[in-house]
Amino acid sequence: MKNFKYYAPTKVVFGKDSELSVAELIKDFGGNKVLLHYGGKSAEKSGLLNKIENCLQNAGIEYVKLGGVVPNPRLSMVRTGIEICKKENIDFLLAVGGGSVIDSCKAISSGRFFDGDVWDLYLKKTRAEKYLPIGCVLTIPAAGSEMSDGSVITNEEGWLKKDYCVDDFRCKFAIMNPELTYTLPAWQTSCGVTDMMMHTFERYFSKDDDMEITNSIAEALLRTVMSEAHKVLKNPTDYNSRAQIMWAGSLAHNDLTGCGTTGDWATHCLEHELSGLFDVSHGAGLAAIWGSWARYCRCENMKQFARFAVNVMQVNNVGSDEELAELGIRAMEEFFHSIGMPTNIKELIGRDITDEEIELMADKCSDGGTSTIGGLKVLTKNDMISIYKMAR
Amino acid sequence: MKNFKYYAPTKVVFGKDSELSVAELIKDFGGNKVLLHYGGKSAEKSGLLNKIENCLQNAGIEYVKLGGVVPNPRLSMVRTGIEICKKENIDFLLAVGGGSVIDSCKAISSGRFFDGDVWDLYLKKTRAEKYLPIGCVLTIPAAGSEMSDGSVITNEEGWLKKDYCVDDFRCKFAIMNPELTYTLPAWQTSCGVTDMMMHTFERYFSKDDDMEITNSIAEALLRTVMSEAHKVLKNPTDYNSRAQIMWAGSLAHNDLTGCGTTGDWATHCLEHELSGLFDVSHGAGLAAIWGSWARYCRCENMKQFARFAVNVMQVNNVGSDEELAELGIRAMEEFFHSIGMPTNIKELIGRDITDEEIELMADKCSDGGTSTIGGLKVLTKNDMISIYKMAR
Repeated sequence: MKNFKYYAPTKVVFGKDSELSVAELIKDFGGNKVLLHYGGKSAEKSGLLNKIENCLQNAGIEYVKLGGVVPNPRLSMVRTGIEICKKENIDFLLAVGGGSVIDSCKAISSGRFFDGDVWDLYLKKTRAEKYLPIGCVLTIPAAGSEMSDGSVITNEEGWLKKDYCVDDFRCKFAIMNPELTYTLPAWQTSCGVTDMMMHTFERYFSKDDDMEITNSIAEALLRTVMSEAHKVLKNPTDYNSRAQIMWAGSLAHNDLTGCGTTGDWATHCLEHELSGLFDVSHGAGLAAIWGSWARYCRCENMKQFARFAVNVMQVNNVGSDEELAELGIRAMEEFFHSIGMPTNIKELIGRDITDEEIELMADKCSDGGTSTIGGLKVLTKNDMISIYKMAR
Repeated sequence: MKNFKYYAPTKVVFGKDSELSVAELIKDFGGNKVLLHYGGKSAEKSGLLNKIENCLQNAGIEYVKLGGVVPNPRLSMVRTGIEICKKENIDFLLAVGGGSVIDSCKAISSGRFFDGDVWDLYLKKTRAEKYLPIGCVLTIPAAGSEMSDGSVITNEEGWLKKDYCVDDFRCKFAIMNPELTYTLPAWQTSCGVTDMMMHTFERYFSKDDDMEITNSIAEALLRTVMSEAHKVLKNPTDYNSRAQIMWAGSLAHNDLTGCGTTGDWATHCLEHELSGLFDVSHGAGLAAIWGSWARYCRCENMKQFARFAVNVMQVNNVGSDEELAELGIRAMEEFFHSIGMPTNIKELIGRDITDEEIELMADKCSDGGTSTIGGLKVLTKNDMISIYKMAR
């Protein structure tokens, strides 16, 4: 068992009408002037943005609005946000949306007091000292950014997608009302479910197989998400199922399912190149690549893949670990198809991927062949090419 | 599903040698002058106290020692601690020990800046405004106080045992090295295991049966604790098993297993009177009373007791909910016996309890018949008497 740190200080306020406590929470955490950051029209159309603005106005909290965050959030928007914060003396960031909006807020938070170029933080050249506090009203359960320490930003120059992780990025509060997710289209619901399952996988499929409590909590979470996903796709306004999925998304990425394990994260790295190059949904990209990654790497801990097959995918516990592992991966791919997700790159992008594109992605993912990814199995550029080809 | 708040801001530093980071953590959370609070001779004999003192000295952190906390920690010790803090201008409390030491620290924390009598806080007459920050080095996995918001103190005048709960009681950090628990006697290990299982039960057996993710995480935790308990009792220096149990103790009481449920807490209330009157171990008292409570209250949610029997106690899923529920409770009592715990009051105190003693406990527990306990089933004084008699 590996030593670990666990730090999940976000105050979660979960349930019906929870968004009405937004002003009180901002004040509790010292906010007086807020950047209200959000995405497209859905927050406006649903009336949520209006409701939040009323709460702020009634509480006498000043705010500046900045909408238009897109999936795979852009560096240019981050730069705009930082300028506004400096000019307007913003002291609190409020994200209304999903992981993209929260990640954009986190980037703005890190750039507010930083003298250099914020992108240097994501290139890991240096670290910022001071951050703006962040709160969020979550509308898309998927990325888990509401409780995580990470932010992923896309630099339009070269379509580079990079992450930066620091405890100061953990939201002070996260408001989660499952009703706010009723209007999510099926595709986005499924992408979200895939993302949260994958956050659990990245920690579950590691070299360490002796943290039983972490393993069994991860399995409980995965089983719940899978069965509730089918219910929600049938009945999008099923409150209890929306609630299970929403809470699972946070627990899948607040490190609970990784306590005492090393983690892997190769599938995420491989996918970042896919969504960087083709601007596809992160969740769908993960589904497209996971089966190939799993088959390529399972030998490193076949027991864990066999355990997964039995405990999560309910494969009959008969046969060798190898056989069980394959049945488990296959059952997982069937689940992905059952919720409308792709299980290869062609299904993802709608055409064959070229050898040149694979070479380009592997080259970026390995920093020109100089770096490796993965914890279960360390993957070089050649390994990445092999996995992309298996998944094509 | 019930709305809920979840707030677990404690920074957990878990694993071998984690106690060596104590000085750095105290400084991170602003501590300059520390009250070093601990229990009996075991922290001294094991060398742990010495190690901690060296860390503080090397980091230039001043401290005042206050040892001698006993199980069911006393109000008189709390008063002594508050006086020292005021006189010495202590700005940080460090608990080295188990739940009793941490609970004593919490009481001191609440009394430091409070003008009135600290016991009034535990009588819930009023609330304190300002608290001293607390950190802990945990040596007994059981009470879960290292991540909880609660503190239970015993007032020697009248042997009243009362709790006070507030988010400011949540430790800033919790250091957990499973090796520090190797020397725990079997009895204390078993009491701890019972306590953490019961913290899960109090949340699991409630009116709400629709929070699947919370239910399934609770079941994962319970199964793990039970199987690891047997391993640890056979081999007290099994690092991995000690680690599972230690981490389970925190997760069982940081509210994770109660998200979206109402909770019950009647068994805890009934037990507080037992350990208040007979000064027995809290864990053993819980084991002595739980079966009787469960049989008295199970009709309120028979489905959940049946589910428990199948998913946790691995009872064969054949028969009515009533039959399964009884088999589950019986299997639980067999487990308690297998780890040396009592399942009735006679086994707990070594003699028959009198009707007068039962009347006295029920009277205290119901504030002279004026208040009720319990969430699954609301229990009046007469119900309490019935349960104590079933358990005698």
